[in-house]
Amino acid sequence: MKAIVVHAAQDLRIEERDMPEAGPGQVLVKMAAGGICGSDLHYYQHGGFGAVRLREPMILGHEVAGHVEAVGAGVEGLDTGQLVAISPSRPCHTCHYCHEGTPQHCLNMRFYGSAMPFPHIQGAFRQYIVADAAQCVPADGLSPAEAAVAEPLSVCLHAARQAGDLMGKRVLVSGCGPIGQLCVLVARAAGAVEIVATDIAPFTLSMAEKVGATRTVNMAETPDGLSEYHADKGHFDVHFECSGAAPALSSAIPALRPRAILVQLGLGGDMTLPVQAMTAKEICFRGSFRFHEEFRTAVAMMQGGQIDVTPLVTHSFGIDEANAAFEMAADRSQAIKAQIVF
Amino acid sequence: MKAIVVHAAQDLRIEERDMPEAGPGQVLVKMAAGGICGSDLHYYQHGGFGAVRLREPMILGHEVAGHVEAVGAGVEGLDTGQLVAISPSRPCHTCHYCHEGTPQHCLNMRFYGSAMPFPHIQGAFRQYIVADAAQCVPADGLSPAEAAVAEPLSVCLHAARQAGDLMGKRVLVSGCGPIGQLCVLVARAAGAVEIVATDIAPFTLSMAEKVGATRTVNMAETPDGLSEYHADKGHFDVHFECSGAAPALSSAIPALRPRAILVQLGLGGDMTLPVQAMTAKEICFRGSFRFHEEFRTAVAMMQGGQIDVTPLVTHSFGIDEANAAFEMAADRSQAIKAQIVF
Amino acid sequence: MKAIVVHAAQDLRIEERDMPEAGPGQVLVKMAAGGICGSDLHYYQHGGFGAVRLREPMILGHEVAGHVEAVGAGVEGLDTGQLVAISPSRPCHTCHYCHEGTPQHCLNMRFYGSAMPFPHIQGAFRQYIVADAAQCVPADGLSPAEAAVAEPLSVCLHAARQAGDLMGKRVLVSGCGPIGQLCVLVARAAGAVEIVATDIAPFTLSMAEKVGATRTVNMAETPDGLSEYHADKGHFDVHFECSGAAPALSSAIPALRPRAILVQLGLGGDMTLPVQAMTAKEICFRGSFRFHEEFRTAVAMMQGGQIDVTPLVTHSFGIDEANAAFEMAADRSQAIKAQIVF
Amino acid sequence: MKAIVVHAAQDLRIEERDMPEAGPGQVLVKMAAGGICGSDLHYYQHGGFGAVRLREPMILGHEVAGHVEAVGAGVEGLDTGQLVAISPSRPCHTCHYCHEGTPQHCLNMRFYGSAMPFPHIQGAFRQYIVADAAQCVPADGLSPAEAAVAEPLSVCLHAARQAGDLMGKRVLVSGCGPIGQLCVLVARAAGAVEIVATDIAPFTLSMAEKVGATRTVNMAETPDGLSEYHADKGHFDVHFECSGAAPALSSAIPALRPRAILVQLGLGGDMTLPVQAMTAKEICFRGSFRFHEEFRTAVAMMQGGQIDVTPLVTHSFGIDEANAAFEMAADRSQAIKAQIVF
Repeated sequence: MKAIVVHAAQDLRIEERDMPEAGPGQVLVKMAAGGICGSDLHYYQHGGFGAVRLREPMILGHEVAGHVEAVGAGVEGLDTGQLVAISPSRPCHTCHYCHEGTPQHCLNMRFYGSAMPFPHIQGAFRQYIVADAAQCVPADGLSPAEAAVAEPLSVCLHAARQAGDLMGKRVLVSGCGPIGQLCVLVARAAGAVEIVATDIAPFTLSMAEKVGATRTVNMAETPDGLSEYHADKGHFDVHFECSGAAPALSSAIPALRPRAILVQLGLGGDMTLPVQAMTAKEICFRGSFRFHEEFRTAVAMMQGGQIDVTPLVTHSFGIDEANAAFEMAADRSQAIKAQIVF
Repeated sequence: MKAIVVHAAQDLRIEERDMPEAGPGQVLVKMAAGGICGSDLHYYQHGGFGAVRLREPMILGHEVAGHVEAVGAGVEGLDTGQLVAISPSRPCHTCHYCHEGTPQHCLNMRFYGSAMPFPHIQGAFRQYIVADAAQCVPADGLSPAEAAVAEPLSVCLHAARQAGDLMGKRVLVSGCGPIGQLCVLVARAAGAVEIVATDIAPFTLSMAEKVGATRTVNMAETPDGLSEYHADKGHFDVHFECSGAAPALSSAIPALRPRAILVQLGLGGDMTLPVQAMTAKEICFRGSFRFHEEFRTAVAMMQGGQIDVTPLVTHSFGIDEANAAFEMAADRSQAIKAQIVF
Repeated sequence: MKAIVVHAAQDLRIEERDMPEAGPGQVLVKMAAGGICGSDLHYYQHGGFGAVRLREPMILGHEVAGHVEAVGAGVEGLDTGQLVAISPSRPCHTCHYCHEGTPQHCLNMRFYGSAMPFPHIQGAFRQYIVADAAQCVPADGLSPAEAAVAEPLSVCLHAARQAGDLMGKRVLVSGCGPIGQLCVLVARAAGAVEIVATDIAPFTLSMAEKVGATRTVNMAETPDGLSEYHADKGHFDVHFECSGAAPALSSAIPALRPRAILVQLGLGGDMTLPVQAMTAKEICFRGSFRFHEEFRTAVAMMQGGQIDVTPLVTHSFGIDEANAAFEMAADRSQAIKAQIVF
Repeated sequence: MKAIVVHAAQDLRIEERDMPEAGPGQVLVKMAAGGICGSDLHYYQHGGFGAVRLREPMILGHEVAGHVEAVGAGVEGLDTGQLVAISPSRPCHTCHYCHEGTPQHCLNMRFYGSAMPFPHIQGAFRQYIVADAAQCVPADGLSPAEAAVAEPLSVCLHAARQAGDLMGKRVLVSGCGPIGQLCVLVARAAGAVEIVATDIAPFTLSMAEKVGATRTVNMAETPDGLSEYHADKGHFDVHFECSGAAPALSSAIPALRPRAILVQLGLGGDMTLPVQAMTAKEICFRGSFRFHEEFRTAVAMMQGGQIDVTPLVTHSFGIDEANAAFEMAADRSQAIKAQIVF
């Protein structure tokens, strides 16, 4: 079977791997669709990010869905041929963070396609994969493309939980890549009454409007586009910062109400922040990292029709077109989410 | 002008009242629509409820909307002819509960149509009313019938806030009167993935399905209809108890997960509860009473299309048909919300 | 070695048991002290409580401390001779409640000395016990008697967490048995500024004053002793209900402020509650059940001097005086906590 | 009567002011003690801070206590000669932040001794002051010096509330000026089991140990003094950042556990922060600003003996020695809190 393997920056190869077999409690899945994530792009473009660098070839990919090909001993509730979304989150369930109910901080996490530990954790861009039954969430009623969005949607559901109840709230979303778009969808599904989205790429802003933003602001064209929200100490109750760009974070502070919650999803290194203003307004900045049980919620909300991610999957490529797929995934003038079809 | 005045149980009269005038900061509203609430019904049917008894004639009504007829000095942002939903919540803003941000517990609350204090607080079922500008929320885009539902919708938004984030949650709603129906709508708008509604009247259950319940259970026909949710210590994350009936509350406990939140909206006197089970499962029972700032949210969510209350307004009557309107409001075989048109 | 075994109501025997051995990851502990808990008393007096009934002989006891006699392979950080408090909480760490960080609701809990499952979970009133290393918390600096109080103290720390931040709060404690006394100590250690304790036994009230209650009320002598707290909708922010008696709960409601938190620890079957008042005041009733990670906190707070439980251990008995110990434990005129010395 | 007036940086004068009179609802207080705060020092040393600059002469001071000299009409519960702590927090109670229960963000706040608005809000370093009765909290049992610490203690109680329940928690305090010292005291009173304090001045660290720090670290001597807390993703549950120095904040991040709460009290302008690490660890950064209802709690906790601030008042000066007092207040080698005696 084939797999998409990154060897170094700009060195992506389609390679053969042995066919795996499902052991007890495991499931063999024939992969159907896989979305390219920002971290996949970083490995492809730069060979890593921050201190995380590729040290050996690694199969990429962690946003995947496929059909059950075979189940191992003791697996119940999964039928051959059934579509499943596969969670890449594999905590140890034995460290103290797992015991406390925060598996996203597991000391021994084996998240698909991650070069943080060594040996690296191989990813899921492969034609067949063996996963634990607990990772496989039945996705009946969804397309493989939708099911493969369960992973980034989970990231945003987890972020929304950091913000608490969104019903009736005024929400700012900065950065309209796939995560920003999904935050717009999630905020809408959670009852937000106002959703303002910002970016510097017109295509992403038009998509944000399409999926539910009540207004969009192009910060490249109107750098002071949020100034109308500065009066009376600010306007927004919640800010989802999805750009990882310091200016997006800093420029939002005057537009946030006292005690607003700023959920940081974007990963962007050190940033210079207006700490004095954040303190005087008692802003609550919360990092949000990955997810765990939200994965099932993500599938359920797509199945229930509360979240429709189909407009976001703008491009699909065959496995042999992987390089083209990665180039497209990085093109903010026309792509939101590019997927591989296996 | 005319007003609907209750004198005693079963003694409802249409009486003349003097035309009021708007003072500084006030608004004269020509009433358009008014919904009959459970407490209005109690005054009409029984002359009160619990220790609260009518001691003088009282104009009923607190779920109202109308058009601005005139504005007093200093009022901004409201135009003549504009539809407004009128909040009946009038806290003092000076007692310590108001200062703490809990005006629903104001020591000097003057809620429309309430016999709790004496002299009673006269209500809003009248052809003209003078309200403070802060009570009048512009309802552009809504019908008067919808705008008059802002009040009970606020009750349910307040209840939902007691339950916290509902996204992805499994919700049980017991009692499918107007409040239960609105809880179904609110739970759906807040992202709940499963909403099971119970009642003993088939008509109310069919309406609950219409507005978003994923399943309904007629507890009169199948008293053990929740038993399938008992496994593994229970199923529901949140329970909105809207019936005020002890059996509805007690029978739900085994179906609630450990640490579930049970929000009590129904008012029903003393109840015998399975406290041992509630303790061992660490159930969180929270009373929910009235609302305040949720009133603006209610209007905004209807305007934004996130909540559609129109199916719930099943009947309308002219002011001279008030007695018929009150009889209909009590008929659970065909009515959810009956309104008066002024 | 000897163990204290209950066979039926009023049938307590000292029996021989085989000496256990520590396997990998386990610790052999020579028991030093064990406190008699209310549930031990229920088995002794009534053969069980509620639906939980003895169906086979069971070693009692779950409030224990002892000295490390031997450690199994792979155990680190525990030395022979060291005093350890032993947590009786043994969740499975694999069910979904464990994964969510709520091990107190584990579907497969094996809590010492419990007749809930069958076969029953044998308890810890024995001269030697083998425990998992994770259950053994070093208690250097404490006496065995203090270390054996770690368990009920954990129950109260867990309850306090349900109430949130107690600093500056006004707290009511009803029921001054060991759990009520420890709630007084915990409330004081958490910064409560006012702690009113109620009971009907003068001895328990005098002890409550000794450990930090700012006032005590004998509800048998002055049944309306809380009426001075009724003004302005109530006075207390938090209520720890430790009696399991319906009147203690009901009579407290008018003395609680709107939005007060009532933490129920006492287990007392069905109760008739003033649900209407609880709803109108938005009282938050929360059950509190057992504990888990609070066990380490309990030991640490005793070691740090923030909580001194020594006055509460009013009586000690040798293992051969077990019957006398159980009789004393039930005597509210002179005992708070009776312990066995092994 | 005399007042301490700042005209510009380094220009502090003792000036005569007219004697005020108490109107209805007001109290005339003869000032007893006043503590010099960091903001007073900034006006004295630099003529302001950040964008806040002196534009007219301003009486300094907002940490004050005195004796009731006379009460206006309608004032109850305050007796002539009684010691009162005077809260400098004077919100409008009519803006929307006040209505929401967040008066610290009042749009019309008139906090004593503040050059933020113009005309400036005159302060309380004067021999007599007229205050609203609601500002005056009886401080029976305290010394004037203690009562004058109620204000900075309130700041720290407010900060602690942002961190939630501290019982059993591991707490880091960076910056051991008066606010840091009070955070140590508050953390101890709230049940923290470990309190590590950092600073670069030995005197302040010795005082921190005296008031309850379980360990202190001199970051000037051992810049990597927190590295032992980096293992397993970090150690501290809560961090009170009281220095306003970017290195203190940045260097703490690796020592904080995932999901730790970092409460920022220090005001220090823009800072470069390790946002990527804060995001990946889901750190919750919360600004804390001033206080309101915590003022009464501060007095109560000192009266109840839970917090003893007396070691912190290291120096007292007569009103005519104001310049010397301000110089001493800035000397971190020997002073924590310097007060003026009027």
